[in-house]
This record gives sequence, structure tokens and C-alpha cells, in this order.
Amino acid sequence: MPDIIRIDDPGDPRLADYRHIRERDLVGREGRFIAEGRVVLNVLLGASRFQAESLLLLENRLDGASDLLERAADRLPVYVASQPVLDAIAGFHVHRGILGIGRRTDEPSLDGFLAELPPRALVLVLVGISNHDNVGAIFRNASAFEADAILLDETSCDPLYRKAIRVSVGGALKVPYWRGGSVDAILASLGDRGFDCLALSPAGATDIAAFQAGERTALLLGSEGTGLPPELLGPLSTIRIAMSKGFDSLNVATAAAIALHRLWAGALVRE
Amino acid sequence: MPDIIRIDDPGDPRLADYRHIRERDLVGREGRFIAEGRVVLNVLLGASRFQAESLLLLENRLDGASDLLERAADRLPVYVASQPVLDAIAGFHVHRGILGIGRRTDEPSLDGFLAELPPRALVLVLVGISNHDNVGAIFRNASAFEADAILLDETSCDPLYRKAIRVSVGGALKVPYWRGGSVDAILASLGDRGFDCLALSPAGATDIAAFQAGERTALLLGSEGTGLPPELLGPLSTIRIAMSKGFDSLNVATAAAIALHRLWAGALVRE
Repeated sequence: MPDIIRIDDPGDPRLADYRHIRERDLVGREGRFIAEGRVVLNVLLGASRFQAESLLLLENRLDGASDLLERAADRLPVYVASQPVLDAIAGFHVHRGILGIGRRTDEPSLDGFLAELPPRALVLVLVGISNHDNVGAIFRNASAFEADAILLDETSCDPLYRKAIRVSVGGALKVPYWRGGSVDAILASLGDRGFDCLALSPAGATDIAAFQAGERTALLLGSEGTGLPPELLGPLSTIRIAMSKGFDSLNVATAAAIALHRLWAGALVRE
Repeated sequence: MPDIIRIDDPGDPRLADYRHIRERDLVGREGRFIAEGRVVLNVLLGASRFQAESLLLLENRLDGASDLLERAADRLPVYVASQPVLDAIAGFHVHRGILGIGRRTDEPSLDGFLAELPPRALVLVLVGISNHDNVGAIFRNASAFEADAILLDETSCDPLYRKAIRVSVGGALKVPYWRGGSVDAILASLGDRGFDCLALSPAGATDIAAFQAGERTALLLGSEGTGLPPELLGPLSTIRIAMSKGFDSLNVATAAAIALHRLWAGALVRE
């Protein structure tokens, strides 16, 4: 059973991590992060690579959260507060009424991470995607279409940012990911592991609708503004999503969803 | 040639429509709206169903905007101001440096609107989609995949909201749309015009990957939270996007993009 702890003082030092969460992010401090809302906390409590450190609930949500609390680790601190106390701690009106602090429990090397992937695997590689909404949306779409992993170069943002986790609807805690280093290092390691590395680009050579993926595919995505650098695109096979000549503009996470749906559905037996 | 007019007083009454645009929207006032940024203004100046009433530029953007101004109507007022004056008018830091006021020039009836559609047509019908980001993103995706029109019921938001236009990257000014009335009235009119009306739903009967669209297809989209109402879904054919059983959550605009890409690409001759 988790420990239910009533909080009446917004200044209680046990809640330091929850303080003013809009203005600061926990990311970077030992892989810890804020999780918000029932759906995301449900993913956190079931995640293998993350651990919940505590929860903070609005008092009138406690009864409705019993299914969630059943999944919580024994002795997990579950702080309970009134709306005014909760809002004073968080620094804004917490209408979702449920927050949690999570922590990443593993930090494998890139090679160790890739070694865990199944023989047939579809991986996304994010290059320079620093927008938290886009990274979150990519994780959401990768969850929906069961991508095996996401690799992020060091210029892409950490998916454990509060906004990214929220936009991912928990996908950031679901899809295995590794972040760091240069895209060149990532591509070299993927090559060593037998991955066919392809770049998604508006000027790509092969239409995604006609593309047949091999056993191990890594799909590179660049930021919307600048796209993937030409020196990177040069030696890679490229894939395009055909669209209107008069309006060739798709959000990067939307483009990822279209590509993932094609690659994932292509691997399914059709009805 | 447009009229270039220098503005030094943030209180100048000619700029009343640009004042504090974050706090209020022009929508509802005679079909007028705010357009922001070069890409959107470019669409506005080339649009047939909209007219620019004026532009407001940062002074150091004037030279770089010559291609834009060449497309402007004769005698269009183009106000030019310094950054402090521009920011004081708009009520925030206008880093894009270019704004405009547009106006819708036509307001057809639903039947008159549908009468203009081509014999082969793909139409989206938005039901209860009130989130400005989602409506904007749907227009962006509909532009990219050349949907012929978007119909919005009265509970969906106006695509001319500032945020919707911005997120649409101009798509809100590009894809013909009609908004108003009940979804029942919209479906009846579509039926009269020979449209096959289908609902996109997580529990849909036919996988979009296996679906063959007829000559005239209307695809209904509901809001993410509540989805399409069961009484509406009952009599309609339904389409689903297959996804992970453990994470069946897609943003509505992303779902629209996947469906549009399937339906649009399906009509193309493959390479």
C-alpha cells in the first residue's frame, strides 16, 4: 500500500519538487521529471524504465484514484492536499488534480540500448528537434504505431520535459529512447547493428506510399524550419511524403505519424 | 502600388484593429481576422475568397517584403512602424514583424457552397472541434493533401481565429470552408449532393488502409475527448486507423492527416 500523507502547508519541504513547476523543469536533475494527469501517471506506474518517487493529489480525487493507487509501489508517498494548497505549491491552477514525480532508472550506453532491440525493428532518429510540443507529439505517434525506439541527437530536446510528456499523453514514458551525442555517431552505431537508415525529406527519392521497409529500419526526422542538413542527406536513402505542390508544409510530428502508419500497417496482415 | 504609411503614434486610430490582438480576436466582426507572418500573408494576398484590408510592417522588414507588396492591391494601406511602436500597438513583442487584417468576401449558403465543388471531391466535416490548434492543424493538413473543402458544424470553432490561422500556416485561407448549423443539416445536404458520408472513429468498421473511396467522399471527425456522438455514428459507415492496442490515442488533426494522405495518395497514379 502507498502512504497517504495529508499536506496542509504549501511550504512543506517534502514537496519541493512540485514547486512552481511551470517556471522550471526537473529535467537534467538526475533524470527526474514531472508527470501530470491520470493517463500519464497510469503509464508511469506501469513503466519499466521509470519509477514514481511520489504523487500529489487533490483531496477530492483520492477516491477516484483507487485503481491508480493499486498499481503504486508499496510505501510510495502519496501527498493529498486541498485545491488552494495544491495551487499554491504548483504555482498555477492544477485542474487535472493529480501530479507525480518520476525518475529514470536506467541510463544505458547507445550500444547497450541498441543491443536490446528486437531483430525486426523500426526506429525514429530525431535531429535538431528542440520544440517540446513536436518531440511530445512524435512520442505519442510512435506509441500509437509501436515504433521500437526513438533516438535523439544532443540538439533535440529531452522528452522528459514537462510539456513534452504532457503532449505525448504518456508516450514519452512508453517508447524506449536514447538521447545524446551527434547524429553521425548515432548513424554509425545503427549501421553497425544492421539498420537501414533513411531520411524523411520533402525532396526524398522514394514515395513513402511505395516504400517497402526491410527488417531493421531507422527513419531520420529533422526540424521543420531547417530540415535535415544536406551533408547528412547526401549519403542516405531518402523518403518523401507526396503532397500538394502549392502547399508543401507538414508539421514534423504529423509527417512522422503518416510515415509510421505506412511502415507499421505495411507490416500487418491486412483484413 | 500599395500606400506606404509611416506610423509613429501607437494610439493612431487607423490601427484600431491591430490593438492588443492577443487578448481579443476580430472573428465574428464581419468576417474579419488577423493574419501574421510572411507565409500567411502571402496566402492572404493570393486568396480569392478573402481580401486584405491593410498590412502592418516592422520598418526594417519593408525592403525584404517587396515581393509580398507586389502582390498587394493598388492603394492597400501598408502601415510601417518601429519595433517599439509595433509592440505597443499589438500588446506583445511581434517578432514576425508583419501583420495584416483580412476580410472574408463571400458568405454562401451551404447549398450554394456545395454546388461549387467538383464532381470528384473529398470533404472533411468537423463536429464539435472547438480547439483552435486542432482546427488550424486540420486546415494545414487539408491544404497539404488538397482536400476540396471543410465543413464545420456550429459547435466547431471558426477557422479565422488568430491561433487557428497561425497554426494552419495559411491553410485556413486556402481550403474552401463553410461553417454553421447542425451536423444533421450538413449531412443531409451532403447526401443530396451525392456524397458518401463516413465517420473516422477508433472503433470504425473498415481500416483506412483497405478503404477505397468513391467519387464524392465526406469524412467526419469528432473531438478527441468525446469523439463523434453514438447516435451520429449509428447510421454511418465508419473508418478506423489501426493502431496499438496498448496506446490507441492520436490527435484528431494527426488522424485527419493519416486519413487524407491515404485517400489523396490513393487517387494518384503511383510511381
